[in-house]
Amino acid sequence: MTTPQLIAQIRSKKSFLCIGLDVDLTKIPEHLLELEDPIFEFNKAIIDATHDLCISYKPNTAFYEAYGIKGWQSLQKTINYINENHPEIFTIADAKRGDIGNTSTMYAKAFFEDLHFDSVTVAPYMGKDSVEPFLAFKDKHTIMLALTSNEGAFDFQTLNANGKQLYKQVLETSITWKNSQNLMYVVGATKAEYFSEIRKIVPNSFLLVPGVGAQGGSLSEVCKYGMNDNIGLLINSSRGIIYASNKLDFAKKAREEALKIQLEMQEIMSLKFSI
Amino acid sequence: MTTPQLIAQIRSKKSFLCIGLDVDLTKIPEHLLELEDPIFEFNKAIIDATHDLCISYKPNTAFYEAYGIKGWQSLQKTINYINENHPEIFTIADAKRGDIGNTSTMYAKAFFEDLHFDSVTVAPYMGKDSVEPFLAFKDKHTIMLALTSNEGAFDFQTLNANGKQLYKQVLETSITWKNSQNLMYVVGATKAEYFSEIRKIVPNSFLLVPGVGAQGGSLSEVCKYGMNDNIGLLINSSRGIIYASNKLDFAKKAREEALKIQLEMQEIMSLKFSI
Repeated sequence: MTTPQLIAQIRSKKSFLCIGLDVDLTKIPEHLLELEDPIFEFNKAIIDATHDLCISYKPNTAFYEAYGIKGWQSLQKTINYINENHPEIFTIADAKRGDIGNTSTMYAKAFFEDLHFDSVTVAPYMGKDSVEPFLAFKDKHTIMLALTSNEGAFDFQTLNANGKQLYKQVLETSITWKNSQNLMYVVGATKAEYFSEIRKIVPNSFLLVPGVGAQGGSLSEVCKYGMNDNIGLLINSSRGIIYASNKLDFAKKAREEALKIQLEMQEIMSLKFSI
Repeated sequence: MTTPQLIAQIRSKKSFLCIGLDVDLTKIPEHLLELEDPIFEFNKAIIDATHDLCISYKPNTAFYEAYGIKGWQSLQKTINYINENHPEIFTIADAKRGDIGNTSTMYAKAFFEDLHFDSVTVAPYMGKDSVEPFLAFKDKHTIMLALTSNEGAFDFQTLNANGKQLYKQVLETSITWKNSQNLMYVVGATKAEYFSEIRKIVPNSFLLVPGVGAQGGSLSEVCKYGMNDNIGLLINSSRGIIYASNKLDFAKKAREEALKIQLEMQEIMSLKFSI
């Protein structure tokens, strides 16, 4: 998917909501556990109930790998279901990969060519030659960790590195890499006050923002400091939507929660863009 | 596996060689491609030919994920084959994972409980709460990236962060984490001159060392600066061993290459420990 296609979808749906499909068998409705593939059935119901309210789905690969081959099959069925039924959706493999050059190429193939995701998240620690192999894929997007939403973000990401905080070094260095136009960045919603600094370095890039809702981040604060003329934000919510209920009505309740966020986004967009 | 068991194996085999099982279908002997699971058959032949010369096998998960579910099945068969036939071997899932707390727990379950690896490699960028979930598993080991063997290591790992290079900050911070006795570190052989500095911070930890051979690192240099009283090194070689030949004799040639390294290790151990 191209960036203009992503922006068009956002404007059309009046939403920049990404729903995280982090499916834990201990948290989903019990009646699903009797089915052959409970994870896929859960995802399918969530997707059917929310696809018009969100512009992206983001399965976190950890939740699938934890169930071995069966989990990997659920992931494959989920991405196939999205691509076949809702090709307008921007899909994110939240995998946080990164390795030396030839190995990163293998990861890129896994997510872009075998599973047909539009994007994958990567970690920056190993530097340029660990990320550029992902950037080489046309119309695919690489979402690099910059400033994450967790407490441990302060261990290294905000250290003063050569005169500026490490996450800023990461941003500044990354924009010099080949095909850096294919980069997006992870910036946690719990750190809204950092967004204006980040926008000075990457004014036009899309930012994937976890941490709204369950982790305490504020949508309006993030939009105030992080939004650009093309929206430029993919706001992720996982638990707050997909686990809104663990009863028979889970998909309906998930839709209600997604709708609340979408309406808030529509309001923000109408104020900013008069649309 | 406990650390004393690992050390006992090293002393018994007079080897601290780890063989990287990074299997690329475009590089393995053609005659294997006709079999139902060429990747597993390749690994099985390599393992049969080398298990007495090495103390560890390290499949890099990227090379398996790139082939989707079939690749994941090959990985599972490979780890099962090692655990059933050579339980003394220290197994490493080279996965370079890392995510927020509950997600890292899912990754840890994937590699420690579903696949039964002894250890997994992780990335440090997200800090304490992304790594501690791995450390909580008893008799399992978490191998964190410190200073990697690639060129991109100089992008961020050697930046001056709060007065010292970032990789040193990573090492120093990590030893304060809960269950840090379960940590090992990745340090590239291409940076042998850094080992004495690293040993000042983590004198007793095992270091997983890629980059000997194909990437140009020197075994004797690494041992000179990095070895401690319990050896403390796992020297990885991948391509130099497993792709020594792509003909019918590939396993025999792999053994010859592994033997060369093992004999060099035996010599180094005999000089240092008079054994």
